[in-house]
Amino acid sequence: MTRLRFTPIAAALPATVPFTGPETLERLRGAPFRARLGANENGFGPSPRAIEAMARAAAEVWKYGDPDSHDLRHALAGHHRVQPENVMLGEGIDGLLGLLVRLLVSPGEVVVTSDGAYPTFNYHVAGFGGRLHKVPYRDHAEDPDALIAAASETGARLVYLANPDNPMGSWHVGIRIEAMLDDLPSGSLLILDEAYAEFAPAEAIPRIDPQDRRVIRFRTFSKAYAMAGARIGYAIGPAELIAGFDRIRNHFGINRIAQIGVLAALEDQDWLAHICAATAAARSRIGDIARANGLVALPSATNFVAIDCGRDGAFARALLDALALEGIFVRMPGVAPMDRCIRVSCGPEAEMDAFADALPRALRALA
Amino acid sequence: MTRLRFTPIAAALPATVPFTGPETLERLRGAPFRARLGANENGFGPSPRAIEAMARAAAEVWKYGDPDSHDLRHALAGHHRVQPENVMLGEGIDGLLGLLVRLLVSPGEVVVTSDGAYPTFNYHVAGFGGRLHKVPYRDHAEDPDALIAAASETGARLVYLANPDNPMGSWHVGIRIEAMLDDLPSGSLLILDEAYAEFAPAEAIPRIDPQDRRVIRFRTFSKAYAMAGARIGYAIGPAELIAGFDRIRNHFGINRIAQIGVLAALEDQDWLAHICAATAAARSRIGDIARANGLVALPSATNFVAIDCGRDGAFARALLDALALEGIFVRMPGVAPMDRCIRVSCGPEAEMDAFADALPRALRALA
Repeated sequence: MTRLRFTPIAAALPATVPFTGPETLERLRGAPFRARLGANENGFGPSPRAIEAMARAAAEVWKYGDPDSHDLRHALAGHHRVQPENVMLGEGIDGLLGLLVRLLVSPGEVVVTSDGAYPTFNYHVAGFGGRLHKVPYRDHAEDPDALIAAASETGARLVYLANPDNPMGSWHVGIRIEAMLDDLPSGSLLILDEAYAEFAPAEAIPRIDPQDRRVIRFRTFSKAYAMAGARIGYAIGPAELIAGFDRIRNHFGINRIAQIGVLAALEDQDWLAHICAATAAARSRIGDIARANGLVALPSATNFVAIDCGRDGAFARALLDALALEGIFVRMPGVAPMDRCIRVSCGPEAEMDAFADALPRALRALA
Repeated sequence: MTRLRFTPIAAALPATVPFTGPETLERLRGAPFRARLGANENGFGPSPRAIEAMARAAAEVWKYGDPDSHDLRHALAGHHRVQPENVMLGEGIDGLLGLLVRLLVSPGEVVVTSDGAYPTFNYHVAGFGGRLHKVPYRDHAEDPDALIAAASETGARLVYLANPDNPMGSWHVGIRIEAMLDDLPSGSLLILDEAYAEFAPAEAIPRIDPQDRRVIRFRTFSKAYAMAGARIGYAIGPAELIAGFDRIRNHFGINRIAQIGVLAALEDQDWLAHICAATAAARSRIGDIARANGLVALPSATNFVAIDCGRDGAFARALLDALALEGIFVRMPGVAPMDRCIRVSCGPEAEMDAFADALPRALRALA
């Protein structure tokens, strides 16, 4: 049966997926969740102008989207004060991460990340035959010094850092990231995943020349813009690298309604400010709920909060399961010692109330 | 500058794209097209039930789509009388073709297709370092015998055949495809691209056991369902191969609104029948327009018609340009001898009228 023989790289891959979707979990448990707080989705919802634009665009879905995403790309360039040649759109940051690995990492080459950082990035590195080298978190945060040291030792092609971090919510100040670039080995490119940047304090955002050949940044409409289902993320980086995506990407891969919707969302910065304020209030509420239950909420610059449950990974996992029985979908970090936490997304008051209601019962069920 | 050094495969790729979008052409010419008849989009439009479902789903776009596309995949399995394990959804057939090549073709391995067939497939083969071997069309049609002979000679991993064909609109009867499978070398997998199948006569569709390990079929919502902008295509094939996609795909790559919309479209088979009838009438109209201008419309089992302009590729290209000046967007086959044709998509009466109006003027401009 040589016909269905996978390539050596594909044959060696595990048949696992980075994340199980909440719909799958709902089917397994036989009931919908009361509160969907596990995927760092943004239940405050997208700009009403984006909703209206998408509803209007539905009848025109017979047209392919613009493969250049011209209008959106130019609007993003203006928003970030870069050139359109510095911007590449894709099917979420996930899609772009896969393409970046494919562009730059040959089989056997090394990529450095933190042990417990974004699993989907690791999935793509493995998917193209790259070798992952992981360094530990330090004080609930990714450790720039350790990442740089590992990159130097291994001759890494790519170094991944999320700022703010997922799953812990921690962040570094921008000048720390800028200093990291100065220490980066000459053969390594920094991937700066800024999926949660809009929620972070201004000082967390480094000042980077878009033509800086040491780094590529990633942003998304999935989090602060509350449009995860649209599947549009983007990269900002040197034009020479950005142009490389055009050699390999699925040029007609982005949904047309989404292109129109996220452009309207980008133009509604008032709504973004409203979302960020509501998210800050919900973060504070999650802190209160944790404290009221004898748990510790870690500081967060994102739309989620890691709650330290004070025990080990088995306990946090059991709490996750107990919460799921209560109809509350949350997730948790996958790696010790961060796996003593559960990770709760911010959401509207009803979801926060449901979590506040369920957490004490779930904890009692474990006692 | 080793930092931005592409992999050897990526470095060797040309910086070209398979297709220039009509929006790009409109920007270049400084005006919108009167008739958008070049990309085999379906201007009759999607099911009103799909439009309504998408408009309703817009506010829920803060949720990621279901990475398993469970409901849609099960509905498609029911529709095609196969098991859900035989169905894989993706961001258009384009996205799935790229993944299939990545799963099965190692650098340097051979893939067979027809010279002038779907360029985006060739783009993906080159993108993963495969070697393309092309055989000529025969009588305006892809040539199963030549494809099989080439696969045998070259030890091809994949053989591509579109039925009905794009860009010529020709088709083979299903039993010819079934016979082709019996002649396929044991190391080759047939890719049967059925993007236009819903427009074709019933006898053009082969009967294939979904577990048949010799073939994988592709279908799409972009053509007969008139939802090109949704970006949802699907593969039907043996479960072992279908499961392989889960090792490498962008699990959260499909737009949530699109998932909901195409499910509604699938459930509205009356609309599909209406579309196919309207398309047949438009095909006939295009034939009349061609004849009235002294040109020959080739038979078509799709939603487009190849019009033989009776001269060479340079003439057809000039006619294409003259039509563009008239505000009519059409495309043409890229390879001789088919490039003596222009390819006109079926559309509603106003677009057909615009084409009828513009064609004689464009021909006169060339005289």
